[in-house]
Amino acid sequence: MPSPLPDGLGFRVLATDGAARRGRLLTAHGTVETPAFMPVGTAATVKAMMPETVAATGAEILLANTYHLMLRPGAEAVAALGGLHRMMDWPRPILTDSGGFQVMSLGDLCRIDPDGVTFKSHLDGSTHRLTPVRAIDIQHKLDATISMVFDECTPFPAEHEVAAASMRRSMDWAARCREAFVPRPGYGLFGIVQGGVYPDLRAESAARLIDIGFEGYAIGGLAVGEGQAAMFETLSATVPHLPTDRPRYLMGVGKPEDLLGAVARGVDMFDCVLPTRSGRTAQAFTRRGPLNLRNARHKADPRPLDEACGCPACRRFSRAYLHHLIRAGEILGLMLLTTHNVTLYQDLMADLRQAIAEGRLKAELEAWRNGLARGDVSPM
Amino acid sequence: MPSPLPDGLGFRVLATDGAARRGRLLTAHGTVETPAFMPVGTAATVKAMMPETVAATGAEILLANTYHLMLRPGAEAVAALGGLHRMMDWPRPILTDSGGFQVMSLGDLCRIDPDGVTFKSHLDGSTHRLTPVRAIDIQHKLDATISMVFDECTPFPAEHEVAAASMRRSMDWAARCREAFVPRPGYGLFGIVQGGVYPDLRAESAARLIDIGFEGYAIGGLAVGEGQAAMFETLSATVPHLPTDRPRYLMGVGKPEDLLGAVARGVDMFDCVLPTRSGRTAQAFTRRGPLNLRNARHKADPRPLDEACGCPACRRFSRAYLHHLIRAGEILGLMLLTTHNVTLYQDLMADLRQAIAEGRLKAELEAWRNGLARGDVSPM
Repeated sequence: MPSPLPDGLGFRVLATDGAARRGRLLTAHGTVETPAFMPVGTAATVKAMMPETVAATGAEILLANTYHLMLRPGAEAVAALGGLHRMMDWPRPILTDSGGFQVMSLGDLCRIDPDGVTFKSHLDGSTHRLTPVRAIDIQHKLDATISMVFDECTPFPAEHEVAAASMRRSMDWAARCREAFVPRPGYGLFGIVQGGVYPDLRAESAARLIDIGFEGYAIGGLAVGEGQAAMFETLSATVPHLPTDRPRYLMGVGKPEDLLGAVARGVDMFDCVLPTRSGRTAQAFTRRGPLNLRNARHKADPRPLDEACGCPACRRFSRAYLHHLIRAGEILGLMLLTTHNVTLYQDLMADLRQAIAEGRLKAELEAWRNGLARGDVSPM
Repeated sequence: MPSPLPDGLGFRVLATDGAARRGRLLTAHGTVETPAFMPVGTAATVKAMMPETVAATGAEILLANTYHLMLRPGAEAVAALGGLHRMMDWPRPILTDSGGFQVMSLGDLCRIDPDGVTFKSHLDGSTHRLTPVRAIDIQHKLDATISMVFDECTPFPAEHEVAAASMRRSMDWAARCREAFVPRPGYGLFGIVQGGVYPDLRAESAARLIDIGFEGYAIGGLAVGEGQAAMFETLSATVPHLPTDRPRYLMGVGKPEDLLGAVARGVDMFDCVLPTRSGRTAQAFTRRGPLNLRNARHKADPRPLDEACGCPACRRFSRAYLHHLIRAGEILGLMLLTTHNVTLYQDLMADLRQAIAEGRLKAELEAWRNGLARGDVSPM
């Protein structure tokens, strides 16, 4: 068993299969088996799920959003309630983003300068400022198990020169974040590799971050419109520059097919709103591809969403009932589809972990890809 | 132990305290301890709750609405999915209303004649018809444990003459319902006493229903604007005319204070949307009266909603977190408040059942009334 670093996170690679790794992350809030998918709990709740339901899907770590929580209820308010874990009754690990991606998505409401970002709240128009130091301070107050450096979001597409300047500013901020971060046993800070789709910039960014030193390394600036092929290409060009003994986290990705390709390229951690958001818009992910439960073809279908799934939605309810709930605007429909989607994502990761451990990842990837591509064509 | 009637529901009065009764209802889908409160599951779901969460509150029987279910997904669709219990994974008893109250609340979309009601769907404007025979047939297809007779909703206020004519039409329809009802062991049909606020009409209605013979007797046409005093007065004038060996059900009632007074007057069963609907509008019922969780005074309050409550919302979360969830529009907020409110209602009924069994109902009613009237005045 690996032991946590006295001043950070423990991580151990248990097995490899090609570039893919089967690992284990040790934190102050428990272990995380990797590759791992983190459901998103933006406002300190995975939308439409009780925490124990999230845990029952197999999820061991959540992501929460610094931008949303700093505005409401506020970092100090969360701290006064004992931190995120206690406030939301999720005793397991939580990773927080730095808020950078969200504030820089505010468009006209946001102004970037060499030291940080000044922005207006989307809630009430009040003015706020985030800097590397403030972003780390907020994440500390939230009691994040894993904090992320505050970085600039490089626009896409971006010329090489623009991407380079943006990346270098992010590396400067990453150093300030490292300095501001208060080390605690079982807690950690991840750096974020930037550089757009340019391999030389990704390599430079990785080298700068390794030089500073982090408990883990994220790959940012992808899944922003570059397409799956360019994303995979950038991953293949970036991952070899990262330390083998530290976790690698691909931010904001993705569809099941994206996860398969990224795990094969050596990524250990993921987050994405897709399973939860889709659950609230009537889309279910299955081993045979997505289903839109609003569609009338499910009206009288007594089958479960996914025959191979053990989640409550699949074990206990028919597609016809889920269709009814969605059509009637019933909250239970969103609850069940969200639970199912998060379960499907966790099952996918569990399958990949086992396949890597057993040295048969290639076959497992093929099986998943074939199922996802086949579609829901079985007769009723 | 009482045994179910071979051709209907078993019911036994286990203890009395004044007019109040501690009873037990035996059905094809399990027992119900009375006095009992039935959470409302209009569209075959108690809104924002998983079925096992409903059961964990102590609820043993639900109400579902014939009007909503006949329109969507349709009685035949429910039957094809194995009936309501199986479709919604609630194996315990379910009572269905007859649809009468809802269709007669449609105003201009509804036309009443001596044999039934023709109405337009609020969903798509399509024309439908409900008669006593059709209402019973639908409830049979839904597999309702307890079906209700199809009755006319007497307007309020109504002159004696109007209330009398309306009641007599309902009694005529009640006889047609009894004839149409297919008896099955452990299933039952309840008659509904009408007659507005007129004691002579209530007595006449009760006598007519007893003459027809039902497995239980409901009191309808109350909680329609007459006020608590008139409701209690009508209850006191009606209950003595009902058989002592059959359950009594007060339809659509009510606030916690209403339940206290009605149990004291000999009512055994209740339903109301109040705990679930309030949960979705940020209102929590507590032993110290209602709380509006949207109110800013809860912003930093680390206390639970109700110190004496054992529900997940109270055991695991602060008012501050619930306030945050409500302000952020998070579904989890509605889930937790709904669960809490249904728990509070079930706890109230459990307290009354125990007090009746122990012959100390008066003191228990006082304790609840004092708490509810005191309000949430304790310092933070």
